[in-house]
Amino acid sequence: MNSSDYKRPLAVCLVSGGLDSCVAAAIASEQCRLAFLHVNYGQRTEKREEKAFKKIAEFYDVTHLLNVSIEYLRKIGGSALTDHSIDVPKEALSGQGIPITYVPFRNTHLLAIAVSWGEVLGARYIYIGATEVDSSGYPDCRESYFKAFNKVIDEGTRPETKMEVVAPLVHMNKAEVVRTGVRLGAPLHLTWSCYENEDVACGKCDSCLLRLKGFREAGVVDPIPYAS
Amino acid sequence: MNSSDYKRPLAVCLVSGGLDSCVAAAIASEQCRLAFLHVNYGQRTEKREEKAFKKIAEFYDVTHLLNVSIEYLRKIGGSALTDHSIDVPKEALSGQGIPITYVPFRNTHLLAIAVSWGEVLGARYIYIGATEVDSSGYPDCRESYFKAFNKVIDEGTRPETKMEVVAPLVHMNKAEVVRTGVRLGAPLHLTWSCYENEDVACGKCDSCLLRLKGFREAGVVDPIPYAS
Repeated sequence: MNSSDYKRPLAVCLVSGGLDSCVAAAIASEQCRLAFLHVNYGQRTEKREEKAFKKIAEFYDVTHLLNVSIEYLRKIGGSALTDHSIDVPKEALSGQGIPITYVPFRNTHLLAIAVSWGEVLGARYIYIGATEVDSSGYPDCRESYFKAFNKVIDEGTRPETKMEVVAPLVHMNKAEVVRTGVRLGAPLHLTWSCYENEDVACGKCDSCLLRLKGFREAGVVDPIPYAS
Repeated sequence: MNSSDYKRPLAVCLVSGGLDSCVAAAIASEQCRLAFLHVNYGQRTEKREEKAFKKIAEFYDVTHLLNVSIEYLRKIGGSALTDHSIDVPKEALSGQGIPITYVPFRNTHLLAIAVSWGEVLGARYIYIGATEVDSSGYPDCRESYFKAFNKVIDEGTRPETKMEVVAPLVHMNKAEVVRTGVRLGAPLHLTWSCYENEDVACGKCDSCLLRLKGFREAGVVDPIPYAS
């Protein structure tokens, strides 16, 4: 790091360990110093995602790291991702409506943690890899949601705090996310997307299907292994 | 409970165990069925507050109870309430500016949990006992903050979810809170406000001073014991 790096603004990046958050962090790294936040919320594959988070943090040489557990979301339930009595849908991308993997209001929890930490660190931006297009129809992944949340940051933090959520992928489809990641040299081989397995990606859950479709449409070979 | 009770809307009440949240719950109980949410965030007196929460829940015969820990706020620090290396100010009510007991963006964490739970329960309202007047100048206790947060609920939840944060005390000073509590028969004797002690209230921390001033101005004797 040379001395001019200290003049770059600090960005808290929400890094799940998945493809989208890795590419969002790659975009942040172009302009900002990085702080990485990972949140476990009782999802099935949290150990595997946490491993991916650590590998991506090493890749970017990030020293501000925070790993937080909000397993209380499991107590609240209401989602196939956190309530293990509900099956994750397989072999069919979601159609209309909000899918069963929607975790009620999840991104507000993640952003609240990022803002609290960012306010202590003096961060200028929060980067989140949410996508509205080609995503799963989660209401808290839409641009209008982030816009509303930024107003809450303005109103709910110290007057001197100037912080803003940036969702650089919000209008990209998965193929554009893959292409952006490749262009920026993001470590896509270190990411994990599967909702079902922790060793070899299942290739069949909603998340795997979306990811594979994205790589296919981008004309890029997905560097991670899949069950055959 | 008679059968007409099932037609009343459900309110998730944030109940810290303090005076304000108890009075907010008393107001909610006038129109709504109640669900009580308590959140520990690594504050010094959390065991005592949790005891008060349970007593107030028993008083109102509330069966929907959720007790959540977000001790990660202690990792984030930045406040005398969660960072035990910072002293809680004594014997002087806060003057200008944001006091050192401000926990960065705390209410967004509390409201996010309330909304996630409320969405699963089908709640119509979230009641919070925040006060803008005569409070400590916390930015996330102002009406403009709650208004902004309600927009985030609209944008970030399922289309069929209609939920709204209600902060009925937001324009009351402590004396009005006390008078309202007395009028509604709220169990003020079960509440706990002291930031410092867990057995007998110190009578000297910001929170005790505000509470005592409120009772004094309301012309009501505070029913809890204080260190002499």
